[in-house]
Amino acid sequence: MEEQIVKAIQDDYPDSFAWCYGCGRLNEEGHHFRTGWKGENTVTVYTPSKDHLALPGFVYGGLIASLIDCHGTGSAALALHRKNGHEPGDGSEPPRFVTASLKVDFLKPTPHGVPLKAIGTVEEIHPKKWKVATEVFANDELCVRGEVVAVVMPSTFLKKD
Amino acid sequence: MEEQIVKAIQDDYPDSFAWCYGCGRLNEEGHHFRTGWKGENTVTVYTPSKDHLALPGFVYGGLIASLIDCHGTGSAALALHRKNGHEPGDGSEPPRFVTASLKVDFLKPTPHGVPLKAIGTVEEIHPKKWKVATEVFANDELCVRGEVVAVVMPSTFLKKD
Repeated sequence: MEEQIVKAIQDDYPDSFAWCYGCGRLNEEGHHFRTGWKGENTVTVYTPSKDHLALPGFVYGGLIASLIDCHGTGSAALALHRKNGHEPGDGSEPPRFVTASLKVDFLKPTPHGVPLKAIGTVEEIHPKKWKVATEVFANDELCVRGEVVAVVMPSTFLKKD
Repeated sequence: MEEQIVKAIQDDYPDSFAWCYGCGRLNEEGHHFRTGWKGENTVTVYTPSKDHLALPGFVYGGLIASLIDCHGTGSAALALHRKNGHEPGDGSEPPRFVTASLKVDFLKPTPHGVPLKAIGTVEEIHPKKWKVATEVFANDELCVRGEVVAVVMPSTFLKKD
C-alpha cells in the first residue's frame, strides 16, 4: 500500500504555478508529485507508470531525476514556509522555488513496479537559496542519492505571457 | 525546422535494450531521443511536448535532465563504438551504457516551444567509464549545462526477466 502524503505543498501553490509537468496539479499529463513533511524530513512518494522503464524491470533514470528535482523544490518551499510560521493547508500561500542545480547518483538499479519514496533533508544556504539532500528508496532499499540547490523563484519568471 | 539526426546510436541497439522511456525506439510512450555524431561532438535534438512545462512558457527541468541523461549514455556508446572502429548504421551492435551520475546546472530558464539541442563532448575516463559534458541550447542560446558519467552496462542488468 502506497504511503499517502496528506498535506502537500503543491496543493497550496496558486493556479499560475500549478502547471509543472512534474508536480503541477493542473498539468493533466504530468506526474503530480506531492511533497509533505514527515517530522523534520520531507517526503514524496511516487509509483512509476508501466512505461517509465530504463530496461524491463528497472525504473528510468530521467524519471528519478524528475522526482528528485520536484521533491527538491517542494522541500525547499516547505522549509521556507515553516520558517515563516506556516504549514501546508493553513491557508497561506507558500513561497515557490526553481532549481538552480540538480545532482543524481545512481547507486544501484531501481526496481520497477513498486512505489519510490524520496526522503529529503533541507538546509538553508541563505534565505533565498536552499539545499535539499534526497535519498530515493524502493522496497526500503536506498537506490539513488540526489541533491538539489533551489532558489526562490525570480519575479521575471511570471512576467512572460 | 528541426535538425534531424540521420544515423542515431539508439537505432542500432538490440530490441532488448530499446525500451528506455527516454531513448528506446520500442517504448511507445517515451521521448524517442536520438543521438548521433556531428563531427567530433554528439548531438540530440528534441522538441518538448506542450505538456513539458515548468511554468507556462518554460520547459520542465526534469525533461531537460532526461535529455541530458540519455544524450549522455548515447554519446558514450557512440564514442566507444567509434573507438572500436564502428559508426552507427554499419551493421554492428553498439556497446550499451548506464548512467552512474548526472549533474545539471540550469543557467537560465529554457523557453518552451522551440527545439532543444544537446551538444556533447565525450571523454574516456577508462575503457568502461566515460564522461559526457553537455550543453543544451534553445534558439542557439545556452540554457543548461550537464554532465553524465556513464559506465558500460553490467551484465547483471539483463539477467532480470
